[in-house]
Amino acid sequence: MKKEFFSGPLDLRRVKITDRFWRREQELVRTQVIPYQWEALNDRVEGAEPSYCMHNFRAAARMMAEKREKGDAYQAPGCTFRGFQTVPEDPAHPEPGRFYGFVFQDTDFSKWIEAVAYSLTQHPDPELERTADEAIDLVCAAQHDSGYLDTYYIINGMDRAFTNLRDHHELYCLGHLAEGAAAYYQATGKDKLLRAACRFADYAVEHFGPEPGKCKGYPGHEIAEMALVRLYEATGEEKYLNLSRFFLDQRGTRPYYFEEELRQRCEYERQPYVPSTNHEYHQSHLPVREQSEAVGHAVRAGYLYSGMADVAKRTGDEAMFAACRRLWDSIVKEKLYITGGVGGTVHGEAFSYPFDLPNDAAYSETCAAIALVFFARRMLEISPEARYADVMERALYNTALAGMALDGKSFFYVNPLEAEPSACRRDKRLEHVRAVRQKWFGCACCPPNIARLVSSLASYAYTENDDTLWTHLYVGSTVTKQAGGNTLRLEMETEIPWQGRAVMTVHTDAPAECTLAFRIPGWCGQASVSAPGDKARTDREGYCYLTGVWRDGDAVALDFPMDVHFVAASPRVRENTGKAAVIRGPITYCAEEADNGRDLHLYRLDLARREDIRVASEDIQGFPVTVLRIPALKERSSLPNGALYGAYAPPALGPAVLKLIPYFAWANRGEGEMRVWTRV
Amino acid sequence: MKKEFFSGPLDLRRVKITDRFWRREQELVRTQVIPYQWEALNDRVEGAEPSYCMHNFRAAARMMAEKREKGDAYQAPGCTFRGFQTVPEDPAHPEPGRFYGFVFQDTDFSKWIEAVAYSLTQHPDPELERTADEAIDLVCAAQHDSGYLDTYYIINGMDRAFTNLRDHHELYCLGHLAEGAAAYYQATGKDKLLRAACRFADYAVEHFGPEPGKCKGYPGHEIAEMALVRLYEATGEEKYLNLSRFFLDQRGTRPYYFEEELRQRCEYERQPYVPSTNHEYHQSHLPVREQSEAVGHAVRAGYLYSGMADVAKRTGDEAMFAACRRLWDSIVKEKLYITGGVGGTVHGEAFSYPFDLPNDAAYSETCAAIALVFFARRMLEISPEARYADVMERALYNTALAGMALDGKSFFYVNPLEAEPSACRRDKRLEHVRAVRQKWFGCACCPPNIARLVSSLASYAYTENDDTLWTHLYVGSTVTKQAGGNTLRLEMETEIPWQGRAVMTVHTDAPAECTLAFRIPGWCGQASVSAPGDKARTDREGYCYLTGVWRDGDAVALDFPMDVHFVAASPRVRENTGKAAVIRGPITYCAEEADNGRDLHLYRLDLARREDIRVASEDIQGFPVTVLRIPALKERSSLPNGALYGAYAPPALGPAVLKLIPYFAWANRGEGEMRVWTRV
Repeated sequence: MKKEFFSGPLDLRRVKITDRFWRREQELVRTQVIPYQWEALNDRVEGAEPSYCMHNFRAAARMMAEKREKGDAYQAPGCTFRGFQTVPEDPAHPEPGRFYGFVFQDTDFSKWIEAVAYSLTQHPDPELERTADEAIDLVCAAQHDSGYLDTYYIINGMDRAFTNLRDHHELYCLGHLAEGAAAYYQATGKDKLLRAACRFADYAVEHFGPEPGKCKGYPGHEIAEMALVRLYEATGEEKYLNLSRFFLDQRGTRPYYFEEELRQRCEYERQPYVPSTNHEYHQSHLPVREQSEAVGHAVRAGYLYSGMADVAKRTGDEAMFAACRRLWDSIVKEKLYITGGVGGTVHGEAFSYPFDLPNDAAYSETCAAIALVFFARRMLEISPEARYADVMERALYNTALAGMALDGKSFFYVNPLEAEPSACRRDKRLEHVRAVRQKWFGCACCPPNIARLVSSLASYAYTENDDTLWTHLYVGSTVTKQAGGNTLRLEMETEIPWQGRAVMTVHTDAPAECTLAFRIPGWCGQASVSAPGDKARTDREGYCYLTGVWRDGDAVALDFPMDVHFVAASPRVRENTGKAAVIRGPITYCAEEADNGRDLHLYRLDLARREDIRVASEDIQGFPVTVLRIPALKERSSLPNGALYGAYAPPALGPAVLKLIPYFAWANRGEGEMRVWTRV
Repeated sequence: MKKEFFSGPLDLRRVKITDRFWRREQELVRTQVIPYQWEALNDRVEGAEPSYCMHNFRAAARMMAEKREKGDAYQAPGCTFRGFQTVPEDPAHPEPGRFYGFVFQDTDFSKWIEAVAYSLTQHPDPELERTADEAIDLVCAAQHDSGYLDTYYIINGMDRAFTNLRDHHELYCLGHLAEGAAAYYQATGKDKLLRAACRFADYAVEHFGPEPGKCKGYPGHEIAEMALVRLYEATGEEKYLNLSRFFLDQRGTRPYYFEEELRQRCEYERQPYVPSTNHEYHQSHLPVREQSEAVGHAVRAGYLYSGMADVAKRTGDEAMFAACRRLWDSIVKEKLYITGGVGGTVHGEAFSYPFDLPNDAAYSETCAAIALVFFARRMLEISPEARYADVMERALYNTALAGMALDGKSFFYVNPLEAEPSACRRDKRLEHVRAVRQKWFGCACCPPNIARLVSSLASYAYTENDDTLWTHLYVGSTVTKQAGGNTLRLEMETEIPWQGRAVMTVHTDAPAECTLAFRIPGWCGQASVSAPGDKARTDREGYCYLTGVWRDGDAVALDFPMDVHFVAASPRVRENTGKAAVIRGPITYCAEEADNGRDLHLYRLDLARREDIRVASEDIQGFPVTVLRIPALKERSSLPNGALYGAYAPPALGPAVLKLIPYFAWANRGEGEMRVWTRV
């Protein structure tokens, strides 16, 4: 690790997104997702599985109030632990004092408040802020006097808090709360929620740690690791960083904590103890510094690796960073979809074994791609290498964006690379795959995750340190950069992802010295960078560093040729032998039935006619995109007489044109076939 | 239906199999499978899941003896129903009075006795017959005084007999018992078991039927339908045929019996009633005469359709036969593997939707292929059309035989068309697939099913009526045929499946008039049939009918060119686009790692060099087979630098030879990759 290359994300209030592409996505989040999500949290969405999130906070707040009033005489009303998900007998009339929904339902609020916070930095909205403040009041009222804040246990009985770390997500709730609270504090300056999060974190600091008598556990679903670092950044309190490091140090050590905990629980509940075998699922199979292969639940994994990078950067932990690099390579060299998705198998929503990247049965959860974006940004903070940003960009523009419909009203949890709607309906092996986005999910992780990612986009586009501002993603925006006591206002104009040009213009009252670093995307061939002649240029790890005194009107013009590329997968990816995918810039393309009719598997790309490829702008549901028309051949769709088997003959091929649209835009024009990989 | 074409199987004692290929298989069954199976029934196989089959008969027999002794004072020891499978706490020491294993465990005996019966017709074996007689004594001792004979309910409490037809397999047990008993009677003339089976069937006749007050149910797992017809054939008792027809008439009518039964059971057990949705699984979704698509559990389906054909033939039920034809077409035109396997999905061990024939995730249960053989033979009995025999032959030579190792000592339940051992181990989606045969199964249907099929092969090779003997399969054998008071001894000599020649020579003391009909296999092009000039020849539906007076020494020589064929699947079978399978005669071929190294998916058949195909005889584990060497090309196995993705370039291809072996012989030389479909 070279500290001179360390950087961090920018204060979002210092960046304004002006980009046509991203402004539109952010507006969808602001006008569609955030309000919808608020309705969902309050169980007011017709036809959707209720969240019970705010219900639970209300129940806990009432209980805490009564407790304070009655003191020791207080009797909690009918505590009952009912496992992972609790459903009321009559969903329309939940009992006011009870907990419902998944054990981690509190995080619906935390993710929402985080997205709200980011959105407020881009688009002040007093009414939204008032709603948020009221929600925060309720959440804080639900907090236990001890500082503990997870309504499942507050309502059902604190005596069993932190006794099922593997499954019950209390530390996951802490993590999301800390992320949301820090974001809201950073966006608005209001610290009520931050103080609540700190009190919960303090409770955890008291409970967990290396000291004798303290609990030696760690989160079943990771996120607290990176969230505690964020809390440390927001407050300066080292204890939070230390707790994060403690969780990482403990993870995967023998004897396995999750086994110990399970044994104790079985003794307590007088149940037979059956050791669990799937430690990979929680990435708790090995000490984190010894891990080399990305395994298990892909979202958990991405969050863990992000936390590892966070801690490695703050503590200078070389072994931890080396593990991050190995895990990164494991993903990128063996387990990454061409759409930037990860997690090949529905079983455990997990990374499959190397090179197992099924197209139709893909899991490729939206949240897992987002987690990969988190991980990539943290790797960039430590070591600005374009290869991290390339993957971040691919995950962002393809799988993460595909998670949301172009109208912001429906969502994918699972992102297949090949879909045949009738197969999805009829084939139990594809039960997890949908060819149409859904309104909401009972386990509502993906929509709010998209919301918080999209509205905090600037955190991924840029990082900085005292001397340097790095541009990782090209997004139309204005950024301010402090340099030698002056403030540079940097204006980025670009047509990426559709055209490979970008210009950054400097506005300043007084010249100021600093370095501006620009990523040269992996997808372009010969990039050209033109800058004022007085700036010194250095190229390193895919970034072009321009150093000098910047004056008002200075401009850097970047030109990244954006050709259509045909991509082959490693022959070890058995599904894709003989096939190619088409990419252009950061965008992965796909063919849809809406443009090409049914039986997409009968098309073959005709690479001999590359010169006939057509690139054009079109609207899909009012969203402007660049589409491709690729010369192709199409096989006849049946054997003679419609037979199931017949003598092999070279198939009759007719000339055809395969129209491709960006993968993120699929499934916006009704249900139909889709595929990313086409035979050549 | 044209009655003049009706035929039936031959008395097995009138056929002797002399065939090199089949004699060897039958010897494996006699010397390996049957003795091993007997050990398994008696829980004496080290390392195998115990069957508890004979244990259960012993427990029931002891109980019945005590009951008779103590009369009304008898108290059954601790009746407990424990669902579908009961496992003792200590598997080595089951309690002597309790039932263990699957609810259908009695059928382990019935299948064994059936295979024993057939084997005795081909190879008398007094010691085996004595063992069988002793086993029969025990089984008969276990029979309830009422005639009922299913040890699960005899032991656990007769009050609940026939209350869970959907899941508890009592009628399945009746069916297998009837099959085994009839076979043993026909082979040995001994009727003790037949009488027991008839008593059980009589009990069912009393219990089920259209008369008021009788139960309107039908089997959850079909087989009784065809077994009762067999009992009718063996005894001449029409009541058995009528019960079979009743079961068929009832099946799928509204309200669904399985729902009624479930509702009653829930009331009785005070459990909430949740209607089941998957009536297709049991083929009980529609009245059988209205069924057109083969759906649900593939073994159940094949047994049902066989029973339908049996009843249609005996009752002249045209609507039933029309349904059989539609269901046959549904299988053959949309749901049949090139290996003759059926059942594309592990979910419900079932037929998947049309054209969904996954190679690596195939279920293609051995028993389902065997059930297809049963169905095909019954269609041939009604209407001798070569297309039925073509499929029967394909299922028999490929999937059914693949179910058993070449040494007869291990078995496949699932028969994939593509296997990659490490994927089978690591991929939960392939959990049902093994690349190595297993010794035995707790649910031991497949090994005994192979045993009874192989040892009764002659029933499938020939059928006859008064005038005509049909040769459906070419198997070296001698057959006697009664014709006009004389007995013709027909000697069939053939090298099929390896060489396409067959000769049938007539031996007789006196000339006799009859018709000999020979199937012209679908896999040959121009067949030639040469027969004495005085025989009249008619060709019909793929059979060559030779009619006349047959004299000693008359011979019919058949020549079926056996070329290597490359087969394409319908483009609607998405898995197989761009691929071909190789067949020669009735044999489907596959490539194995043992011959071709790893990464079989990187081979492409080079059809331009067809003239370089080599056909040769080789031994695999001492079993002589014909192997093929096909000109091919092999792609390099990685992208430059081992990248996961790279620019598409036509893959570097090296000339190669792909050695193919018969599919049935795969997985006999250690664990390795295998595939049937290869890219072209």
